[in-house]
Amino acid sequence: MSGLASPAVTLVLGGARSGKSAFAERLVEASGFAKVYIATGRAFDPEMEARIEDHRARRGSGWRTVEAPLGLGAAIAAEARASRVVLVDCLTLWLTNLMLEGRDVPGEGAALVATLQRVAGPVVLVSNEVGLGIVPDNVMARDFRDHAGRLHQQIAAAAAQVFFVAAGLPLKMKG
Amino acid sequence: MSGLASPAVTLVLGGARSGKSAFAERLVEASGFAKVYIATGRAFDPEMEARIEDHRARRGSGWRTVEAPLGLGAAIAAEARASRVVLVDCLTLWLTNLMLEGRDVPGEGAALVATLQRVAGPVVLVSNEVGLGIVPDNVMARDFRDHAGRLHQQIAAAAAQVFFVAAGLPLKMKG
Amino acid sequence: MSGLASPAVTLVLGGARSGKSAFAERLVEASGFAKVYIATGRAFDPEMEARIEDHRARRGSGWRTVEAPLGLGAAIAAEARASRVVLVDCLTLWLTNLMLEGRDVPGEGAALVATLQRVAGPVVLVSNEVGLGIVPDNVMARDFRDHAGRLHQQIAAAAAQVFFVAAGLPLKMKG
Repeated sequence: MSGLASPAVTLVLGGARSGKSAFAERLVEASGFAKVYIATGRAFDPEMEARIEDHRARRGSGWRTVEAPLGLGAAIAAEARASRVVLVDCLTLWLTNLMLEGRDVPGEGAALVATLQRVAGPVVLVSNEVGLGIVPDNVMARDFRDHAGRLHQQIAAAAAQVFFVAAGLPLKMKG
Repeated sequence: MSGLASPAVTLVLGGARSGKSAFAERLVEASGFAKVYIATGRAFDPEMEARIEDHRARRGSGWRTVEAPLGLGAAIAAEARASRVVLVDCLTLWLTNLMLEGRDVPGEGAALVATLQRVAGPVVLVSNEVGLGIVPDNVMARDFRDHAGRLHQQIAAAAAQVFFVAAGLPLKMKG
Repeated sequence: MSGLASPAVTLVLGGARSGKSAFAERLVEASGFAKVYIATGRAFDPEMEARIEDHRARRGSGWRTVEAPLGLGAAIAAEARASRVVLVDCLTLWLTNLMLEGRDVPGEGAALVATLQRVAGPVVLVSNEVGLGIVPDNVMARDFRDHAGRLHQQIAAAAAQVFFVAAGLPLKMKG
C-alpha cells in the first residue's frame, strides 16, 4: 500500500462491489492522519440506506462525517488541511445528484478539479468506472457515462496517484 | 505464464469473450498435472448449448468433466488432490443457478471460500467481471453484480494468484 | 509513452470516455511519422455528429482523413506504408456498421486480421472494451460483445503492443 502525501490527490476507481471503498479507507487509515469522510450519497430508498449503513459500520469510529450531495468542492475546501485526510465517497453519486438537479455538470466538474489543484491537504476520491459495458439504450445513462469518464480523466490528470481496484486488489495506474 | 502450486487457488477474472477460459486452460495444461473440469453451466437454451460445446471442443481430450450447477464446493472437495488440477468454469454461472433456485447466496459463497481455504490440490476458478458498466435497471441484475463482486473479493483474498484477462492477455493482480 | 515501430500493429482498448482516442493520437503524434486517420463512424444522428466533430477538433491539422465505414481492411492496406502511421478509430463502430449491413462479421474480422499481419507500416487501432458489464438483455447486444471480444483477442495476438486505457492513463498489456 502506498502512502498519502500532503497535499496530494488520490483517485480510486473500480467497479460495483470491487472493494474500492474499503481499499480507500485502508489507505486513509494507514496514513495516520485525522480522518474526514465526505458522503455524497442520499438515502432516497431502502437499498441506498442499506449501502450507506454498510459503509458506516465498516469505517468504524474515528471519522468525522460531512454530507455533501451537491456542494462537494466547497466541502473539500472547507475540510482539507495538512494534518488530516479527506475521503470522498463517491464521485459517481455526486454526478448523479447534479444531473437530477439539472446542474451544469461540466462546469461543476471543472470547478471541482480547480479546487483539487489548490487543496491544502490530502484528498482521496472514490468513483465507479461505468464505461466498460455495452452502450446503454437511454440518453441519460449515456450522458452519465460521458460525464463520469470526462471527470475521471480530469481528476486523474491532477492526481498524484490513481488506482484501479478489482476483486479488492489495487492496480496502480499512476504515481 | 505462471506456474500452479499445489495446493493453491488461482482466480481468473475477465469480461465476456475476453479469452479468460482459454487462458485458464493454458495455465492448467502447462502445469502437467491431471485435469478435471467442473462445469457449472446448464444448457437451458441453444445459445448456451453452443457456448458449452465451443468450450468442450477447445479443451480437447485429457480432461475429466464433472457437472456441478449447484453443489460446487462439494464437487471441488471431492475432486481436488495434490496430483491434479481442478478448473471451475465459471463462478458467475454458478451464482446465476443459485439465484434462480432461491438459495442463500452469501451463505453458499462463504461455504465455497471455506472449502477453497482447505483444498487438497490446485484449483483454478474462472469468473466474469460484471461490475464495470452502468448500474442495471432491474433489482435482480443489481443483486447479481453485488453477489459476484463480493465473492470475487473473498476468493481473491484467499487466492495465491489472481489474473485479470482482457483481449486474451493476462494482467497479474496478485501472486 | 512507447514508440511506434514500422511495420507494427498497436491496439488501444478502453471504455467510453476513457481517453483512449486522445492517447492513441498522442502515440501517433510522438512518432514523427506522417498521419492518416481512418474514420469508421457514420454521422447518422446529431449525437454522433457532435462526437465526430469533437474528435476532429482535437486532432488538429496535419492529418489526412479517410472514411471507411465498411471497407476497413482495404483502406488500411491502401494507406499503410513505412513512412506514415494509420490510426483507425474505432473498431467497435466498424463492427456496428457490419452488423447493421448484415455482413459476415467473423469472416470480415478474419480478413482484417490477415491484412494487419502483412501491413506495410505502423497501424494503431482504437476500440471500446464492452464486455465488463452485466449480460445484456437483447441478442443483438450479446452478439455485438461476442464479435468485439473475439476480434480484440485476434488483433491483440497479432499486435506488437496492446494498451488498456482508463481515466486517460494507459496500462500496457503487451509489448
